[in-house]
Amino acid sequence: MDTTLSASQPNLLDEIRTLTQERLAPRASKYDEGAANPHENWRDLWEHGWLAMSVPKDYGGMGLDTSTYVMVLEEIAKGCINTCMTLHMHSTVMKFIAALATPEQMKRLYPEVVEGGKLFASWGSEPAVSLGRNFIVETTIDPTKGGYAINGVKHFCTMAGAATYYMVWCALPGADMEAGLMLALVPAGNDGVRIIGDWNTLGMRGTVSPSAEFNNCFVGPEQILGEPGQATKVGVVESFGLGFGAACLGAATAALDFTSEFCKTRIYKPDPLPIAHDVTVQRHVAGMSVHLDSARSMLYQSASQWEDADVITKGILAAKAKYLCAEAALEATSKAIQVVGGRSISKSLPLERAFRDVRACTLMPPNNDAMLANIGKAQLGLAGTAFGLDAQEV
Amino acid sequence: MDTTLSASQPNLLDEIRTLTQERLAPRASKYDEGAANPHENWRDLWEHGWLAMSVPKDYGGMGLDTSTYVMVLEEIAKGCINTCMTLHMHSTVMKFIAALATPEQMKRLYPEVVEGGKLFASWGSEPAVSLGRNFIVETTIDPTKGGYAINGVKHFCTMAGAATYYMVWCALPGADMEAGLMLALVPAGNDGVRIIGDWNTLGMRGTVSPSAEFNNCFVGPEQILGEPGQATKVGVVESFGLGFGAACLGAATAALDFTSEFCKTRIYKPDPLPIAHDVTVQRHVAGMSVHLDSARSMLYQSASQWEDADVITKGILAAKAKYLCAEAALEATSKAIQVVGGRSISKSLPLERAFRDVRACTLMPPNNDAMLANIGKAQLGLAGTAFGLDAQEV
Amino acid sequence: MDTTLSASQPNLLDEIRTLTQERLAPRASKYDEGAANPHENWRDLWEHGWLAMSVPKDYGGMGLDTSTYVMVLEEIAKGCINTCMTLHMHSTVMKFIAALATPEQMKRLYPEVVEGGKLFASWGSEPAVSLGRNFIVETTIDPTKGGYAINGVKHFCTMAGAATYYMVWCALPGADMEAGLMLALVPAGNDGVRIIGDWNTLGMRGTVSPSAEFNNCFVGPEQILGEPGQATKVGVVESFGLGFGAACLGAATAALDFTSEFCKTRIYKPDPLPIAHDVTVQRHVAGMSVHLDSARSMLYQSASQWEDADVITKGILAAKAKYLCAEAALEATSKAIQVVGGRSISKSLPLERAFRDVRACTLMPPNNDAMLANIGKAQLGLAGTAFGLDAQEV
Amino acid sequence: MDTTLSASQPNLLDEIRTLTQERLAPRASKYDEGAANPHENWRDLWEHGWLAMSVPKDYGGMGLDTSTYVMVLEEIAKGCINTCMTLHMHSTVMKFIAALATPEQMKRLYPEVVEGGKLFASWGSEPAVSLGRNFIVETTIDPTKGGYAINGVKHFCTMAGAATYYMVWCALPGADMEAGLMLALVPAGNDGVRIIGDWNTLGMRGTVSPSAEFNNCFVGPEQILGEPGQATKVGVVESFGLGFGAACLGAATAALDFTSEFCKTRIYKPDPLPIAHDVTVQRHVAGMSVHLDSARSMLYQSASQWEDADVITKGILAAKAKYLCAEAALEATSKAIQVVGGRSISKSLPLERAFRDVRACTLMPPNNDAMLANIGKAQLGLAGTAFGLDAQEV
Repeated sequence: MDTTLSASQPNLLDEIRTLTQERLAPRASKYDEGAANPHENWRDLWEHGWLAMSVPKDYGGMGLDTSTYVMVLEEIAKGCINTCMTLHMHSTVMKFIAALATPEQMKRLYPEVVEGGKLFASWGSEPAVSLGRNFIVETTIDPTKGGYAINGVKHFCTMAGAATYYMVWCALPGADMEAGLMLALVPAGNDGVRIIGDWNTLGMRGTVSPSAEFNNCFVGPEQILGEPGQATKVGVVESFGLGFGAACLGAATAALDFTSEFCKTRIYKPDPLPIAHDVTVQRHVAGMSVHLDSARSMLYQSASQWEDADVITKGILAAKAKYLCAEAALEATSKAIQVVGGRSISKSLPLERAFRDVRACTLMPPNNDAMLANIGKAQLGLAGTAFGLDAQEV
Repeated sequence: MDTTLSASQPNLLDEIRTLTQERLAPRASKYDEGAANPHENWRDLWEHGWLAMSVPKDYGGMGLDTSTYVMVLEEIAKGCINTCMTLHMHSTVMKFIAALATPEQMKRLYPEVVEGGKLFASWGSEPAVSLGRNFIVETTIDPTKGGYAINGVKHFCTMAGAATYYMVWCALPGADMEAGLMLALVPAGNDGVRIIGDWNTLGMRGTVSPSAEFNNCFVGPEQILGEPGQATKVGVVESFGLGFGAACLGAATAALDFTSEFCKTRIYKPDPLPIAHDVTVQRHVAGMSVHLDSARSMLYQSASQWEDADVITKGILAAKAKYLCAEAALEATSKAIQVVGGRSISKSLPLERAFRDVRACTLMPPNNDAMLANIGKAQLGLAGTAFGLDAQEV
Repeated sequence: MDTTLSASQPNLLDEIRTLTQERLAPRASKYDEGAANPHENWRDLWEHGWLAMSVPKDYGGMGLDTSTYVMVLEEIAKGCINTCMTLHMHSTVMKFIAALATPEQMKRLYPEVVEGGKLFASWGSEPAVSLGRNFIVETTIDPTKGGYAINGVKHFCTMAGAATYYMVWCALPGADMEAGLMLALVPAGNDGVRIIGDWNTLGMRGTVSPSAEFNNCFVGPEQILGEPGQATKVGVVESFGLGFGAACLGAATAALDFTSEFCKTRIYKPDPLPIAHDVTVQRHVAGMSVHLDSARSMLYQSASQWEDADVITKGILAAKAKYLCAEAALEATSKAIQVVGGRSISKSLPLERAFRDVRACTLMPPNNDAMLANIGKAQLGLAGTAFGLDAQEV
Repeated sequence: MDTTLSASQPNLLDEIRTLTQERLAPRASKYDEGAANPHENWRDLWEHGWLAMSVPKDYGGMGLDTSTYVMVLEEIAKGCINTCMTLHMHSTVMKFIAALATPEQMKRLYPEVVEGGKLFASWGSEPAVSLGRNFIVETTIDPTKGGYAINGVKHFCTMAGAATYYMVWCALPGADMEAGLMLALVPAGNDGVRIIGDWNTLGMRGTVSPSAEFNNCFVGPEQILGEPGQATKVGVVESFGLGFGAACLGAATAALDFTSEFCKTRIYKPDPLPIAHDVTVQRHVAGMSVHLDSARSMLYQSASQWEDADVITKGILAAKAKYLCAEAALEATSKAIQVVGGRSISKSLPLERAFRDVRACTLMPPNNDAMLANIGKAQLGLAGTAFGLDAQEV
């Protein structure tokens, strides 16, 4: 069932679907195998304008509404979840810029994307904290002569070495998170940042997310986005969850489609008909299908209410969408392997990759337990912001 | 979260919500305890026009679209699921009349509802068959002098003795279902029909659905709806499932609301705060909430696509909505009891009734296994109509 | 599969099975319908020695080991869960007497059971606390002239008005639970105790568990069991959970057996074979069966390790057994209704009663959430006693 | 909890535990990474007698009973599931030899294992059939001059190129499976067998199970085990399932242990205590723990009843054990990743490997759906043999 509740630009969806299937998807297994960034896919996306899908129209971007945005991500994830996730991170930085940057910054930064095809990463995670539990960063940013000095260690540094800017989550020393949190755009070539460790993981291998060390990394004031403490109060950080949901959903939907096609064509002797006629197969496929549809329905509903929602509501909308998409995707990718059977574990088929990628993807913060806690609190009249900071909307 | 995706008439929802909470809900436990039809509630519904919600506007009814219809049912089920289900059955007969009756029949029958407050029942189940498995009726309708003679036994005869007309599913002798299925409107006073057995059940007690025996029950040709074989081809029988879904969803949502309120106010010594602050309670409530929201999202989506869907698609739309609503409602009403604890099993609180009613309600055909099979077949390219008859739309 | 891992007295199991099926089970629906205590069943149990199954052999009882004990309970629950649960409560008081009473008390009390057929109840729950959360009792026991005065309110007072003694959990004023908890055997006729409220519930109706008020209820020192604070340190209170597990398991196993028999004989037209041949039915029945077997396996294992386990381990053994039995029983009794379909909700069949009883039975403290927390803590090296009192074994 | 219900030789368990942890486990990740057979681990096993654990004592083996056997497998799987599975396959061939071989064959073959450290593989799967659905082999074995000629294609040929003998499941042309099934021990060097394809999979990578082609592969009569049709009637083929269950259980238990240790030591700022104190973590770990314990309890129970069970009962015992172990292991290895979080997906930790291996391991035939169907049929009085052949025990 094609549920296009609110795609304001259906032709855009056709375009991204075609681009994904023809250009992006065929390279997906290569990025996975090599734990390599999807450079060719990024280039294709850029050439068709997608790197700017969250850049405001005034700056030459698509300025997509949230509904269309999640549908685009879902389509891309059907072909290559690594491409989807890196694009989502980049696009979310575009939204932070729209919410926090000065006009001068926008004029400087957006063209690098629109015209230059540059990518922006966002680095928040750290070794000693768990963003899914408490929104705390230990990486410090100290005012120094002519700018700031960043010190600390980040891990899960997606697109390290590939993005042009790293948006680093850091905090003024001594201040609490609500007052002191800052976002700094560190150019990739800055010699105060050093990539450490490697990236050899179960899934999401193409995001290439090793650790990075900041050692008196200097940034000028023009590299700072917004005022201290503002980053979590502008309704952007919550949108990470929507995209994570779309990514899981897309990858799992592709797994379902593959499984359905397999069942429609696969005949085991001495049965005269394909296994699609097997009642147990039908039940498994139905369970996968109806839960993915249900999660999709909630994702699209959350997206359609996004622009009008306040920060707290955005957190709940994202929590519901991500939780359901993640759970349905975990179930679907595991069941797909059960239905297709022993053949499914071969790396020559796409199912085992979806199984690995979805398991990894659902861990992105806040994780499902945190999402569930958030939903429960909301239902019980105890709602707070997604990250537990008692922010008011600015 | 109030998700009013498509209610075209929000004021109607306010009205039914108020009527339900002020008038219908307070009587719900009485109907349950006595296994008695909700006569006073029906009267209230009639006086406010709701018995005619599926009567076309041309005949003085509300002519509600499907989206508004399911939302109205959901609201009523929050207060009294027995009232909801009997109204749904009655309203579905109204839709059969709109689809199958002659103008003369409409002119005669609709005013009985609009002006007279009469109720119409639909009787399909039989002892020897399972509608959830195969759509077969053994009750025969034989052409006889001046009309027809009906013979057979029906069970689950909702509103037996209370409705004014019983729409009886029967078949021409010797014909297969697709060609011979007929709908006859038997007046309650017809002496060829005799109510047998009693109705003492786990739940849905207010539907009062004993068995009935037809013994050369004579009906004139003016009591027949449509041509033989037409009944399952007009896209009405599928809508039963949507209403069953709305009924489960409403009852379970009320259980969630009660549970949330309980948790927000209940303090156990020596804890200083209500149990809403308990992490495990939050998880349970979140699970109930997010799955009901997700089912609601799918129900509304199915309803919004209803009018434009063909018969096969309607079957799938209903299957997805009913399956998800039923599963979420079973989970929520059981978890509600777990969360509230020992106090919840008292008949002085509404939870135990919701638990019983939802378990019973989900059994209405096609049951969840049949729904799941239907969804699986659709996903695998083997879709047929909801009841396995290879009907084309008329 | 008959899994009699450790029944030391298989002939006893045959005896109780026969007694249950021939005498106890036929009365079960009557007790449920009337919310009445199973007096006739108690008499039958007494006449065959079962009221003394936990009375030591030296005092004329059976002195059953824990393995045989849970198997006996399971057998009785297959026929009448209310009889099972009241017998379990009574038998657990027998164990408290064995662990805490003086030889004089034993000589006085046990004959009342063995020869007199008297029953002993245990009353712990109170309105303002949740035993599943914190083991706190507000009912006070004050030393007074010649004995003690009890004041407070208990609810869920099983066998109120039917047992001969109520073992009341109370506490010395001002002392903490660990030091001040006391058990007093209040004779039913004591005019300081007054039964209040009624008992009209979803299930477990035959336990008849209204509230009771203690108003300067005097008991002499010969009615006190053990020293203050000793009650939770003797490894008896933990055994409540084992019996709750056995009760759920037995009731659900009977539901499975009924369902299997139904499926083996029920044919729906036009199918030539009973629905036992339906693949989906087989899957449902398999799920019920394998999870009940698995829970039984754990219950028997826990029971077989009981006598050698310390207090903390007993809590964990009981938690695993009760949790699994309760979850499997909830699933099985609900699925039984789904498999049997609409017919199952009639009170003329036993399934709807099992569905109600099991849902109610699983709430007995500590509830499943508390059991799960206990299991988790044990796995994580944080094990404490079942009720959170840091008791050492005496 | 250490549940050693029936290990007749506890010192053996200590020995294999020590050998596994000290020698086998450290090499596990290497075999996984390289998709390489565990040659060094096999050698260690041989040197300590474990390659002969299913060789009868009369022939110099350990002659382990089934209970001890599954416990040994479980211990090995805690360290290296690939070593466990290949040993299990080899040991099951030892059992086929014990059940089917002539004394001369035993005298010839067993010393190759006991003294020579040789390995035996069993190859059943084929491209065009699904053993989990129907037990059919298309590979033919034709009587020819002086012996037999084998023709056909096998896949999932575990230990291809590493074992010394391949026990090939084949059938006399034109005969049905029940009459014509044969087992031939093909020496690895036979030039009628050719390894084709590669082995690059999600998990179970160290089993190295590519395809193999038989082209007029000649075997003498001394290489045939038993009479045609006998292979599935001796109660050995059913024991594959027990071992698959033990393998899943062991791998998942190791994942639980790792997770518990992680939670007991991991502290996230600003929390003062390790995450083991987090209520949600406790619930997850409890769920993993109690379901693995429950599956283990059933596995041990099935094993303890094995020697006395007939062929049909063996099939059911294996089905229950494997189904529960597989489901619990799938849940535990996925939840382990959720609990440990983002760090868990690194290949430097063992969790992601367990997650992959368990998902793959559960697919070994008969798969969980077939197991469930078998359990359901047994419960409904329709039990047949595990593979649907109406065999009587010989």
